[in-house]
Order: sequence, then C-alpha cells, then structure tokens
Amino acid sequence: MKKVIYLLFVLLGSSLAGMAQRPPVISSPDVHPDHRVTFRYFSRNAKKVTLNGEFLAAPVAMTRDTAGIWSVTVPAVKPDVYPYSFSVDSVQIADPNNTYIFANERFKRSIVDVPGDQPLIHSLQKVPHGKISYRYYPSATLGRTRNVLIYTPPGFDPNGKTKYPVLYLIHGGSDTEETWTKVGRAHWIADNLIAQGKAKPMVIVMPYGNVRPSPMADFTKDLVNDIIPFVEANYPVHKDSKNRAVAGFSVGGGQTLNIGLTNPDKFAYVCSYAPYTATEEFAKNFTNWSPNAEQMNKQLKLFTISVGTDDFLYEPVKQNIAMFQSKKLNLTPIIVPGGHTWMNCKLYLAQTLPQLFK
Amino acid sequence: MKKVIYLLFVLLGSSLAGMAQRPPVISSPDVHPDHRVTFRYFSRNAKKVTLNGEFLAAPVAMTRDTAGIWSVTVPAVKPDVYPYSFSVDSVQIADPNNTYIFANERFKRSIVDVPGDQPLIHSLQKVPHGKISYRYYPSATLGRTRNVLIYTPPGFDPNGKTKYPVLYLIHGGSDTEETWTKVGRAHWIADNLIAQGKAKPMVIVMPYGNVRPSPMADFTKDLVNDIIPFVEANYPVHKDSKNRAVAGFSVGGGQTLNIGLTNPDKFAYVCSYAPYTATEEFAKNFTNWSPNAEQMNKQLKLFTISVGTDDFLYEPVKQNIAMFQSKKLNLTPIIVPGGHTWMNCKLYLAQTLPQLFK
Repeated sequence: MKKVIYLLFVLLGSSLAGMAQRPPVISSPDVHPDHRVTFRYFSRNAKKVTLNGEFLAAPVAMTRDTAGIWSVTVPAVKPDVYPYSFSVDSVQIADPNNTYIFANERFKRSIVDVPGDQPLIHSLQKVPHGKISYRYYPSATLGRTRNVLIYTPPGFDPNGKTKYPVLYLIHGGSDTEETWTKVGRAHWIADNLIAQGKAKPMVIVMPYGNVRPSPMADFTKDLVNDIIPFVEANYPVHKDSKNRAVAGFSVGGGQTLNIGLTNPDKFAYVCSYAPYTATEEFAKNFTNWSPNAEQMNKQLKLFTISVGTDDFLYEPVKQNIAMFQSKKLNLTPIIVPGGHTWMNCKLYLAQTLPQLFK
Repeated sequence: MKKVIYLLFVLLGSSLAGMAQRPPVISSPDVHPDHRVTFRYFSRNAKKVTLNGEFLAAPVAMTRDTAGIWSVTVPAVKPDVYPYSFSVDSVQIADPNNTYIFANERFKRSIVDVPGDQPLIHSLQKVPHGKISYRYYPSATLGRTRNVLIYTPPGFDPNGKTKYPVLYLIHGGSDTEETWTKVGRAHWIADNLIAQGKAKPMVIVMPYGNVRPSPMADFTKDLVNDIIPFVEANYPVHKDSKNRAVAGFSVGGGQTLNIGLTNPDKFAYVCSYAPYTATEEFAKNFTNWSPNAEQMNKQLKLFTISVGTDDFLYEPVKQNIAMFQSKKLNLTPIIVPGGHTWMNCKLYLAQTLPQLFK
C-alpha cells in the first residue's frame, strides 16, 4: 500500500490535495540565461493555447507535443518583471505551475521575473533587507478592520532613538495592498536604493486603497484619520509634513493627487504615477480650483507626475500636468517611454524615492 | 475624451491595466447570511461551467443567463474556509473576481470564507493582533536567500525583556510559505487563542519547506542550521528545547517527524498533521529505528499525530502511529472527522497550539 502511494506521488510530484485533478509536474516559466523564456501548459483536450504577456506585442500561439504539453519559447525579453497569462480555448488563466500571481481583484495573471545580466534596481540583491509586516488597523472611517503592509528599513528599531520619514504608497484600481510588493518590488527597490546611499531609510506604508462600494473620497479620510494615526502610534516616525510623502499609481495616482494636494500641510512630497483622474472626487477637488500657489509651493518640497508616452492615459495626464502648472504650482513632470504597466511603476518609484526627504 | 474614458471605466469597473480582456465587474463569491454561497463567472463563449469546491461532494453545474454570467447558489455550507475553482469547458481556473488565492505552486484555486454565526477560532476577531513579517534569511545549506514568514504576538517587543517560545510551522507539499497564513489563518488562530488565554504568546516561524530539486533532507539541515540561528539572532526568544516546537501538515507533517524526532534535544514539542511519510528521508530515519524511548520520552513534552478519518492517508498514518507506539514513545494520536484538507489543518493547529509550552 505504501509503495503504491509512494509511486503515485513520484509520478505526480509531491503534491497531495486535490491530486485527482492534478496534471504532471512541468516547469513553467523557464527563464534562460540569454533572456529567452519558455512557457509550458498541460492539456490533452485543449484545441488552442496562446500566451499573452506584457513583453509581447501580440499573443503568440503555443504548440502541443504528443504528451499534451503546450509550449512556446519567446525571444530574448528585456529584463524586467512582467505579467502574463494563457488563453486556453479562449479561457484566460494564470500559469498553474507558477507560484507567483499578480495580486489583483479582477483578473488572475502570473508574473515572470527576467533577471538582468547585472542586478536590476528591483531585484533581490545581497544587501541588508528591510521587512514587510502585515498589519491590521481599525478604520473608524470605514467601520471595519483593514489590512495594511508596512515596510521598515534594514536596522529599523521600533524602540530606538532614530525616527523615520514615511511614504504612503498606493496601488492601482483593481490591485490590492500586496501589489506594490508582489509585483512592484517596492521593498527591494527601497533596500537597494538605501544600500547605495541614494534613498533615505524610510518606512513605507502600503494601504488597501479600494473602498468599493463606498465613495473613493472615503479613502482620503481613512488614510488621514485612521492610517496615519495608526502608523504614528506604532512606529518611531516623524510627524511633520516634511517627513511625510504620498505616492500612487493609476487610480492610486489620482488618490495621491486628491490626498496630497488637499492636505499640503500634511504631505510635503506628492508623487503621482500615471494618475487616473476621471473620478467624481478629482472633479470636485480640482474643477475651478484656486489654490494659493505661493503658499503651496512653500509647503510642497516635491510634486511630480510621472507618465509613459505609450500610456493610454498619456493625453489626460498631460492635460492635468498643464492644469496644475497653469495654477503656478511647482510641478515636475517625469515623462518616460512605456505604457500603463507595473514595469513603469517600478521605474517611477525608483526615480522618485531618491528625491524624498532631502 | 475624458468623458469617454470615464464612461468606459464606469462600465468596466475601476480596473485599468489589461482592460481590453476584462469582463464586466461581477461579484463572486457572495456569501449569504444563511451560509448559502453564490458563485459567478462571466463567459459568452463557454459551453459548460462547473463549480468544484471542498464543500461539495461532487462538482455542480453553473447556469448561464442571457448576459453570459454563469452562476450557481449552493445550499448552506458549514462555516469554514474552503478552496474552490471553476471548470470552464474542462479548463480549471481560479475565480477571476475573487482576490483570495490558495497559495500553491501547482494549482490555482480560490478560497471562500463562510463565517460562522459566532466567530470561529480562525476568523478575524476584535482582539489584539500580532503581525506577520516577511523576512529573508541566508541559507548556507541551500546556497541562496530564502523567504520566511514570522508571526509575532500582540504586544511583542523586539527589545523588551520578555522572551518568547517558538513554533516552527511547515506547509504541505506543493504549498508555499504563505499557505499557513493565507489559507490556514495561523495568525488569527494564534491571536484568538492568545486573547482567550488558551495559548501562550509565541513566535511562529513559517518557512518555505520545498527544496526541490535538492533532497528533502536538506530542509532539515536548513531549518536546524540556518532558520533557527536566524530567528534566535533576530528575535527575543528562548533557545532551549522546552521552548521550541515543530509542526507541519502533509509533506510538512512528514518533515515535522524527521526534524523533531531526529533532534529531540532541540524540540520538546512535535505535532504532525496528516503526515505524508512515503519519502526516502522518512525511510532512512525510521526503518529499523531503535530509539532510546525512556530518554526521548523525557525530552519530548508533547508528541502528537493528527489525522482525519476521511484522509486518504488515514491508513498509512495509523500505521505510523502504531510504529511509533511500538517503539514505546509517548505519542498522542488525535483522530478527528474530515479529510486531507486545510479545513482540517486549521483544526489541528487550534487543537495543538494550547498544548505547547505548558
């Protein structure tokens, strides 16, 4: 009996639960040293399997071998971290053999990390590592206990004399509080920039920005009235605006503008990445807005808006940049190649972290 | 232009990236107050969609409405956390609209949490919360930097005078270092039992137990020679065997027996959950094994093996229980209903945590 079970598991790999449905163990993705990548998927029944990935201009067909393993090897990919998925007879799926999932509420994609010949700024390097803590805070605004991820830098001592500045870092519209670490590698970017002396050691707070079905404006209240007090009660951090930054991507980039520019007494650093601003809250805050530019420019030590020229929001972002500049605010646009992607997100973060708290 | 984009996003929900492939926003799963659950999936093209779930005896068909939304409502489910998936024309997928994924290397399933009328031991309750930290440690054994999750209890002070006992808690065969928290809710079980005064405040270390393609025996070395020193160098913990426990499920349950019983000077508490033992390492350690039972029974303050009567490993686990008892070890079998599931895992943990470090 034991021998039979043992053999069965050797055949199936060492997986157990739900094993009746389990395909053979195959390796996918295989990233080759020359940056080509092989993707594999097992199905005896599928009629068509294609690979979709943000490193591809268009989906590519996978081909089936006699054992039912579909595969494709793509030519050398520019080193980065990319989302991808398979379409199996037009059903979109994450790669079953890849542990790493794009943290998201509305789709399930996998991620593949193509390392550079030299370590990239977002890669795990041999430097001192900070840690990410998964915490719960009571949100009086939203009437529930909510998640928040908190990065503390290497050498962080919760009871030491060193006080840290804080970056509040917000994900995109259907992302989660884990997307900035699981996909955006914010913790490794911070580890590496701190090790290089390019960024100041800081605490990075990654909240869950989606408050559906409540109005998005409630997230501004949640951050200001619930998250900041929780962080300041539990971490040795500076409590003045010059040691507080807010940044975010896409919907989170819009939230960043709403949160930062309506609270310039609280945030001296406002970095918005490819902001999505077609929201009621943004219209309410910034239509017919008449800021005291002189005062705000004194309060804001840094105000950036980043966007890629291939971003489908490039035009509206440019319009918003022009709008803020017409109000005489000291806004630094950061225009780079690339689209509305998490590859660009990592770049935006790596470009702005060194400018914070200087 | 802005208005068009805005409308587009209202239609599609607030999600952005990859939106061309995005189905309409639908809610799934919907857990009803009476414990029925509605599952939904969108496809205009699918011919057959079924729901598979560990709360079901067999898959159930979902039915399609005119808008292409497939759904099924299952009768009241016993409150618990369950894995489930959809089969779409025989392609198995996680629920695209559910954020919560079963952390695993070999399959992608979703999880649904059916709350009890009274809070369950694994649910998020209004009690003080510990925190989970994602850490990296250097494994000299395996020659790489590896992940480890570390739970610290409420009130934990890394520099305080209080020293804590440590439980090393290992996942199943194709699981990851996140499965004990994401699926097994080990942190909430600990929070609740500590709040009730039933478990001692402790540090819980959740390593990544899979060392493929290296021999599984290397994980024993990694835990003893790399993880324990990392934990003891970085956390205020007791360093004697009476303050050290090891527990694990399935393949991790087998690892628990290998690690604990070959190192009784290091672990006074050994709790194995539904162990999978058809491995070379287990055979090497325990075939023709002649322990000094008198000495081991003095060293081991607690030695348990838990298993469900519907577990497909029930027979081999019973044989192992008999084998260890025949060696005159003080082993406490914990036999309960249920199968080789993470529902049972949570139960095993909740049953053994209160017995540790007493």
